[in-house]
Amino acid sequence: MNFNMNFNNTPGLLEGRKKIEAGAYSCKQWLMDCRQVIRNHNPAIKALVHVDFDQALGAAREQDQNLSGGSLRGVPVAVKDVFDTADLPTEFNSPLHRGRRPTSNAACVESLLAAGAVLIGKAATVEFASVGRVAETVNPWDHHRTPGGSSSGSAAAVATGMAPVALATQTGGSTIRPASFCGVAAMKPSYGVVSVEGLRPYAPSLDTVGWMTRGVADLAAVANALNVFPGPEPSGNAPRIGFYRTPYWEEALPETRAALDWARARLAAAGVAVVDVDGPDNCDQLNQAQDTIMHGEGKAAYWAEYQRWPEQLHSELRREVENARGCSAADLRWAHDYLGAMRGRFDQAFAGFDAWLTPAVPGQAPLGLSSTGDAVFNRLWTGLHMPAVTLPGFRSEDKLPVGIQLVAPRFEDANLLRIAGLVEAALAG
Amino acid sequence: MNFNMNFNNTPGLLEGRKKIEAGAYSCKQWLMDCRQVIRNHNPAIKALVHVDFDQALGAAREQDQNLSGGSLRGVPVAVKDVFDTADLPTEFNSPLHRGRRPTSNAACVESLLAAGAVLIGKAATVEFASVGRVAETVNPWDHHRTPGGSSSGSAAAVATGMAPVALATQTGGSTIRPASFCGVAAMKPSYGVVSVEGLRPYAPSLDTVGWMTRGVADLAAVANALNVFPGPEPSGNAPRIGFYRTPYWEEALPETRAALDWARARLAAAGVAVVDVDGPDNCDQLNQAQDTIMHGEGKAAYWAEYQRWPEQLHSELRREVENARGCSAADLRWAHDYLGAMRGRFDQAFAGFDAWLTPAVPGQAPLGLSSTGDAVFNRLWTGLHMPAVTLPGFRSEDKLPVGIQLVAPRFEDANLLRIAGLVEAALAG
Repeated sequence: MNFNMNFNNTPGLLEGRKKIEAGAYSCKQWLMDCRQVIRNHNPAIKALVHVDFDQALGAAREQDQNLSGGSLRGVPVAVKDVFDTADLPTEFNSPLHRGRRPTSNAACVESLLAAGAVLIGKAATVEFASVGRVAETVNPWDHHRTPGGSSSGSAAAVATGMAPVALATQTGGSTIRPASFCGVAAMKPSYGVVSVEGLRPYAPSLDTVGWMTRGVADLAAVANALNVFPGPEPSGNAPRIGFYRTPYWEEALPETRAALDWARARLAAAGVAVVDVDGPDNCDQLNQAQDTIMHGEGKAAYWAEYQRWPEQLHSELRREVENARGCSAADLRWAHDYLGAMRGRFDQAFAGFDAWLTPAVPGQAPLGLSSTGDAVFNRLWTGLHMPAVTLPGFRSEDKLPVGIQLVAPRFEDANLLRIAGLVEAALAG
Repeated sequence: MNFNMNFNNTPGLLEGRKKIEAGAYSCKQWLMDCRQVIRNHNPAIKALVHVDFDQALGAAREQDQNLSGGSLRGVPVAVKDVFDTADLPTEFNSPLHRGRRPTSNAACVESLLAAGAVLIGKAATVEFASVGRVAETVNPWDHHRTPGGSSSGSAAAVATGMAPVALATQTGGSTIRPASFCGVAAMKPSYGVVSVEGLRPYAPSLDTVGWMTRGVADLAAVANALNVFPGPEPSGNAPRIGFYRTPYWEEALPETRAALDWARARLAAAGVAVVDVDGPDNCDQLNQAQDTIMHGEGKAAYWAEYQRWPEQLHSELRREVENARGCSAADLRWAHDYLGAMRGRFDQAFAGFDAWLTPAVPGQAPLGLSSTGDAVFNRLWTGLHMPAVTLPGFRSEDKLPVGIQLVAPRFEDANLLRIAGLVEAALAG
């Protein structure tokens, strides 16, 4: 148990950037400070799987010289090990790809580096960010609990201060869930607004690049470097926030209900009313439709490995290729058509609202490391292609983080971040 | 003008495979024969941009020893230069990526190689398979005409016999159009059934791996190696074929109308009635919706290059990043919702039909090399995620190829290939 640990001795993204621009900090020092956290905690927490300090130090020194540098000059960034990186291996947590060394960076990695970020390490992932081997990462707040997945290492790295930013992905619940379990902020943007080039695909009509930081302004800084904006401008009005229980409310454990009550109370204290909303009718099959597409498209994702290494491929991945769930063409058509219709209906249901407050996770991180927890409150939003942000702050009776989630209509990413910033301020009281 | 040229002195896929299995041919000899075609014609036609014969020869010799080899043992394959290959550069026809050398194969390339295929070369492409520089490839049947794009080199390589198979892609009309202009068979499968891993993304909700060969049985052999099957079994009934003009019929030039009349007449002679069908109501914005998504998602595709090389990036690609078409969030939502609804309605409109006969291209390949022609008869099917096959056979009054197209409901790829085989036999008379 590490209830009283305070990991974050390294600065957050904008905090560090400000110190550097004020001449009170250096890119090199930032990297050294993160290195110290990694040395202290990574052996136990296992958030990062590939690190090359000498190389990172060279990049940090370069950024120290680069006075006309970008918006992320000197920011150490951890990258989930499903994104190609030119300077570190990319192995997907797959024994079949041990030692794999791409020669180029994934587009989103390249974008952060082009803005001045420094690659500090690759973060542990569930195999292929899908259904294979879990990461060895433990939850920083209780080593007997899962950090969540599949972006396990990304969440733990940001939670401990190994890096102020980590890139993640979400096809089901792989960004929002681990962030909520580890007590960090995270964003899963609208589908299609960030390039997936150099990301190992799982289900292309769902795969989304996400990221984690310590707070909303830092999330926005990353969104900016990834050119999520210019999308539609934020609306500028007073925040109009709905409270949406989802069709899966019965899965919400007491600590998640408490987290949402806490958030509503804090918002009320800040003068922001949160109004109960109903979703569209007939939306109780959202997760089933997302699941059908994920596994239906997953059938193609590991076919080449299946041909090359039929025996060695993880049994869960073999099940994907073999379509062990028996997903039929009719099932797939139904799932695409159902979600295709629901996306528009959800947008309409948002009329008069900027964002909805909704559960991020069923509860605190469950005990054990063999499962990464339930994505029941994430899959629907991934399937709906809507942007989602999780905010930390609440702690359960066990002193474990439980995130809350804000969602918005498709492509309203900028307005969602605006609202999330206002909510974050209200939560801080 | 090359009206009377007969390029195909090398065997087609199954033809060559049969000869090899009968001991009458070798993988090495097949490669040498293709090399001869490449030496004779590639300097003028410019279909292949990277070739390494020594390496390919090593692979062919290996396959000659590999008597327990796969279904594509010894088959030379050309790969569009937007798929990563470990043994040849992958440059996307982008000057910004000159000399780029990935260390792994794209999943679909790996699948063909795992089945025994031999990589013979990378095929010319429009820059990033999108809107940048056109390929230098010329139409093999008239060097003053475009081969079509963006899979220009793939189509020309198969048309001339440089390779019996080429991998292609389609986000708008990039597989079916060049195949039709060059007189080869091609398949664009249903969205999501072949992995896009290692393919440079343009618009992830549309990007589809396609392939070209000389005939339908060869298309099916490639589909098999790519694990498109097992999908739904072919239906087994007598072919029920509709004739669908699309909302864009006025774009069909006399030679396309003649090609379709010819096909219908041949089918009638074979005892197959082709029945006029109407599509669903309100389907006249299919291409506009596809265009909106393609450019909307294209905004993300070149952002990293835009950051790194703002001046050097092709102006058309800069326009994508800058959203020069002014695609709004509302536009994107409309396009996704419209296509989301239309996909189901088209499937329903197919009740009682196995496939629809429909134009593949407006007409023969237009004169000039600066444009790759119009994808008006392709974009809708890509947007609808439906499988499509183009068949060669018809020649215009100018003796130029004009393909016809068959389409089927989503995921009915196996049945589409069955019908295409029957149609091909009828066309041969």
